[in-house]
Amino acid sequence: MKTFTSAGELQQVLREQKSNQKSIGYVATMGYLHEGHATLMEKARKENDIVVLSIFVNPLQFGPNEDFETYPRDLERDENVAANAGVDYLFYPTVQEMYGEEPSVKVVVQSRTDCLCGRKRPGHFDGVATVLTKFFNIILPDRAYFGKKDAQQVAVIDGLIKDFNFPIELVAVDTVREEDGLAKSSRNVYLSDGERMEAKELYQSLLKAAEAIDSGERNAAAVTALVRKHIEAHTHGLIDYIEIYQYPALKPLETLSGNIILALAVKFKHARLIDNITINIK
Amino acid sequence: MKTFTSAGELQQVLREQKSNQKSIGYVATMGYLHEGHATLMEKARKENDIVVLSIFVNPLQFGPNEDFETYPRDLERDENVAANAGVDYLFYPTVQEMYGEEPSVKVVVQSRTDCLCGRKRPGHFDGVATVLTKFFNIILPDRAYFGKKDAQQVAVIDGLIKDFNFPIELVAVDTVREEDGLAKSSRNVYLSDGERMEAKELYQSLLKAAEAIDSGERNAAAVTALVRKHIEAHTHGLIDYIEIYQYPALKPLETLSGNIILALAVKFKHARLIDNITINIK
Repeated sequence: MKTFTSAGELQQVLREQKSNQKSIGYVATMGYLHEGHATLMEKARKENDIVVLSIFVNPLQFGPNEDFETYPRDLERDENVAANAGVDYLFYPTVQEMYGEEPSVKVVVQSRTDCLCGRKRPGHFDGVATVLTKFFNIILPDRAYFGKKDAQQVAVIDGLIKDFNFPIELVAVDTVREEDGLAKSSRNVYLSDGERMEAKELYQSLLKAAEAIDSGERNAAAVTALVRKHIEAHTHGLIDYIEIYQYPALKPLETLSGNIILALAVKFKHARLIDNITINIK
Repeated sequence: MKTFTSAGELQQVLREQKSNQKSIGYVATMGYLHEGHATLMEKARKENDIVVLSIFVNPLQFGPNEDFETYPRDLERDENVAANAGVDYLFYPTVQEMYGEEPSVKVVVQSRTDCLCGRKRPGHFDGVATVLTKFFNIILPDRAYFGKKDAQQVAVIDGLIKDFNFPIELVAVDTVREEDGLAKSSRNVYLSDGERMEAKELYQSLLKAAEAIDSGERNAAAVTALVRKHIEAHTHGLIDYIEIYQYPALKPLETLSGNIILALAVKFKHARLIDNITINIK
């Protein structure tokens, strides 16, 4: 594995690889890699000649009261994880390398943001879309891998790629789960033993909703009510949101049809957990 | 010459060409091609294996009171001009093909816009940068050709390419001039005979300023005053602006140094003319 800090040097190497017909798979991260990232890298490894991983804690996607400064960083550990997952090129730029003195352009995301987790993070997805536009142009991937756990992020990136005509295939990778169904997350360690027992009920509530939809339920409000009832009955968590939208457009709908997403966020004492399922209703 | 209306089809063809090591030169236009465009196409022809021309009257870059609907269009004539200039692929998409129902992302230009012609056209360069981001991703050019006559546009595109890391070389092509120095423009035909005689003084005033700078003048206000005096003495035109900036950053400066641009806009009865020179002060 070779590590690059210069965008120009990496771009040059990858342009040559592309002109030699090599396919490039790309995984974007903010580092502090966990099993979810490893799954993305391994999938990219299987499907491409070259795998590029970026590690960049992107200041543009943090709000003024968010944890940009204290976001965990551990390059040495990350390098091991990346090398073990078969990454060829690690791109680890500084903020200066990415944004210089004063960037003259940015990407603004005009839809798919004012709902779910985005509602409370104004500008967050502008920062995500801006940095990815840069990474896409530096890395020139054929395929870019993102986890479905961040479903809103996947929806925004789907729009970015399609609406800006990036010649890139977005590969949305299934959420990795514990044996009892809890979505894997670095934050799960903050759960107490009791909370950890309860946390599996989040996914259970989504499965119950999927079952109801499968049995013919088409009323969005009825489905979210069912999820709410299940979580309230089985956990002490505080529900932040339970929402249903068209997917990936993230437009509201009262009667379910087509591709939909059912997503939730629940706060426990020291961890806010998110999860979601997407369903294609024939 | 082959004409495409589908972004996906053109992108597919050009991806194949690129993977066969072909270099791609790109000229972006709104059609109604004139000699200035032909110069860009001919330069692209000399420097690349493949030349792509886009013709698209981009609604995003027109203000609400501007002439999007009445902007002149003549595809048949344009096809002849393009074929004669050696264009390989003409891309002529509809508005629907470019923007679909409701694009989820746009580019916002954060600097280089609030001066020169941009001051009176809020949002104009956002539209230019958004459509070029799309064209760049569809066409994947190695080099993109733009005329220096629209110096602010060149500055904005310079920022777009650098700040978004597009793997594209921006080729800024010298302004084509009449024998007496008047910058060629479709609008010159709107000048009366008397105005046409006077119009050459615009470029003369810029040359005079260049001479003063060459002789050691470093005071920006003194230079613009000199240009103003020349134009007022030799024409009946109404001065819209005479401005000096760092180039391409387009930041104001009082004392001249480095790369600078001296640009002007002057209104005659039925035509508003622009011109500029850039100077590298050692």
